[in-house]
Formats: sequence, structure tokens, C-alpha cells
Amino acid sequence: MKRDGILVVISGFAGAGKGTVVKGLMERHEGYALSVSMTTRAPRPGEKEGVSYFFTDKEHFEKTIAENGLVEYAQYCGNYYGTPRAYVEEKLSEGLDVILEIEIQGAMKIKKLFPDSLLLFVMPPSAQILKERLTGRGTETPEVIKQRMDRAAGESEGIEDYDYILINDTVDRCVEEAHAVITASHARPKRNLALIEQMRADLKKMAEEKDI
Amino acid sequence: MKRDGILVVISGFAGAGKGTVVKGLMERHEGYALSVSMTTRAPRPGEKEGVSYFFTDKEHFEKTIAENGLVEYAQYCGNYYGTPRAYVEEKLSEGLDVILEIEIQGAMKIKKLFPDSLLLFVMPPSAQILKERLTGRGTETPEVIKQRMDRAAGESEGIEDYDYILINDTVDRCVEEAHAVITASHARPKRNLALIEQMRADLKKMAEEKDI
Repeated sequence: MKRDGILVVISGFAGAGKGTVVKGLMERHEGYALSVSMTTRAPRPGEKEGVSYFFTDKEHFEKTIAENGLVEYAQYCGNYYGTPRAYVEEKLSEGLDVILEIEIQGAMKIKKLFPDSLLLFVMPPSAQILKERLTGRGTETPEVIKQRMDRAAGESEGIEDYDYILINDTVDRCVEEAHAVITASHARPKRNLALIEQMRADLKKMAEEKDI
Repeated sequence: MKRDGILVVISGFAGAGKGTVVKGLMERHEGYALSVSMTTRAPRPGEKEGVSYFFTDKEHFEKTIAENGLVEYAQYCGNYYGTPRAYVEEKLSEGLDVILEIEIQGAMKIKKLFPDSLLLFVMPPSAQILKERLTGRGTETPEVIKQRMDRAAGESEGIEDYDYILINDTVDRCVEEAHAVITASHARPKRNLALIEQMRADLKKMAEEKDI
């Protein structure tokens, strides 16, 4: 019996390493499809069209919204970010688990629209380690690091709305835990109703037969 | 931070192979403790005291009930079966996941008393395979096989009350799926509240500091 794909949302504090976890999941395990967001933000150095994002302009983005072509979208710092619907629906119907790496507000929208989606929150082992990771990059100013820590403090209020938390102590362990959590979710009765109904019907039929 | 143990209930149709799955889980993975039931039924050939069951008499069993010494108990065919409380509580407090292999009514009692328990239902891939497994043993009369199939038909009505279903197609895969499901459950926010609160407090404290 064909399994249904699960819409998997991965969020987490900046610096928690969610990008690395997503990358590990895609590289090491079968059955996943990574959703690429659409944005009106300008590409940064090294970002690739169709890999990092689908880059587009405001007019096309708003036309896509009007055509119901996005699963969710939001605006940050004057730019649009959204999840194209066609890719998500196609891959789910193929039985693949579709990964969306989006922030907390987008995650809550997804949960509302897709109650069967699975929300994962990637966390560093401690606040101190988060700070060290952000500082250790050496690429951010103290102001930006402070902004990110402040934002993490705000986002931490929403952790209980996620289905699972993943502690990113070592990437390997965290990737395997993410995979275990998604694998486990396929074993929920609500995701196997056709199988359960079939079993029930067959057992009932056999019970009604006179001989075994 | 010390993790809490999970009370894991494993049920399933007779012939679904739940005993084999439990055995595989205990042998291949760390962190589990197997709860042994107490019963007033007479030992069958090959059954060992303290391994298969704790065998006792009616008087002692009823005294144990009166002293609140059982997590749950039930009567079948004139015999008592129950889960001793002390072992379960001791192992959970040590952080071990405690496995109870009990039938569906007992499982529902456990869920009511321990809302954080995890209920797994082991199923054969199909009703036909269940019948073949029961027939293939060669040790049961057609009447007994028919009784078990009828009982399975009745029990199948309760499958959705379980948290997860495990399809026992091959024992190896099913054992690993059981382990993944239990591992995943440790990553639920409700099982990590102390960690989340600590993270929140530390992030808030850092956000209030003027300098990073």
C-alpha cells in the first residue's frame, strides 16, 4: 500500500544549524524532497537560482499569490518569501516527505492549513552555545549577533507549538534523530487508515466464515 | 539533563509477533527495562518464574491489589494478571523506558492512568498472513485458531486508540521501527519542559544584557 508523504516543517533559531541538519537529511536518506522558497530579495553572493531560492520580482510574486500558487508567504524587511504550492503537492502525492525550512510564523500557518504536517524545532544544546556559534562565525557584527539572540528569545516562546524538538549537539546525531522522528510519524494510525480499514474488513470476513 | 523514562505499552493480535519484537528491542538496544507481569495462572512447561511471569496465588494477588501494588490488573478465564507498580516506577525514575506487553483493555487503563505513556500496536501485514502464521505453528486446533481470529477482529476496532502501529513484516525492520518510534517520543516538547524553560530563561537573560 502506497504511503502518503508528510509535509515536514523545520524551524529553529539562527545559528542552531537547521540548514546543516536539512542538508544531512537530504544527503543521507531516501524519500525526501526539499521545497525551495520563492523570494523577491536580491540574491546574495554564492546563492543559486532554484537551489537557495527561486528569485523573482514583486509583480510576479503578487501574481503568484493571486493565483493561489503559494502554500504560505510572508514579508520581511520589505521582501516577500513564500512556498510554491505545485512542487509541494506533486512531491507529497509521489509519497515523498517534503521538507520546508521556514520560520516560526510560516510554520504556524502551515500547521493551520495542513493539520497533518509535522513541525520540528532545531535547538542548540544551550543558549551559551548558540551565542558562541553566532560569535564564532566571525562574520557578524556584535549588533547583528545581539539582534539574533533577541529574536531567539522571542521565538523560544513558541517551542511548545512544535511537534518535536531536535537538540543539535552533533550534526550526525541530530540528522538521525530527525529521520527517526519523521519515520515514526509514518506509523501514526491516522496516516494508515486505509490499511487499518482493510485489516478490519478482512478479519471480519474471516470471522464470519464457518471454517478456518 | 537527565531524560525521563517512557512507559511503553506493546499490544497486538495473537500471532502478530509482539513477543518477538519485544525480545529484539531488549536484545539490540540500550535503555529499556521489561516489566514482568504477575499472575495467578499456573506456569506452563518452559515458563520461568520472574522471566515469563511472577507466579503467585489468589490471596497474595488480592493483597497486592489492596496495597495499591499494581499499576493495572485484569481477570481472564478465572486468573488474575497484573503489572507490579514498584518495578515500573523504579525503572522510569532511572530514565529507562519500561516495556509492558499487555492486551488492549490493560493498555487503555494504562493510557488513562499515565497519559504520557506510549501505546504501540503490532500488526501483521495482512489478515491472511495472520491466519497463515497461526495455522503454520501447527500447535493449535482449528477451534483455537478460529477463536484467535475472532478475537483479532474484535481487537481491531481499538487500533486508532494506539499512538503508533507497527507492521511486523520482518522482525528486524519492525524492531528498528519500534525503537525509532520510542526514540522519537523522547523528542516531544512535553517530555523536555525543563530544557525548554532553561533555554528560555537563559536567552531572556542574555537579551537583557547590554553587550553581547
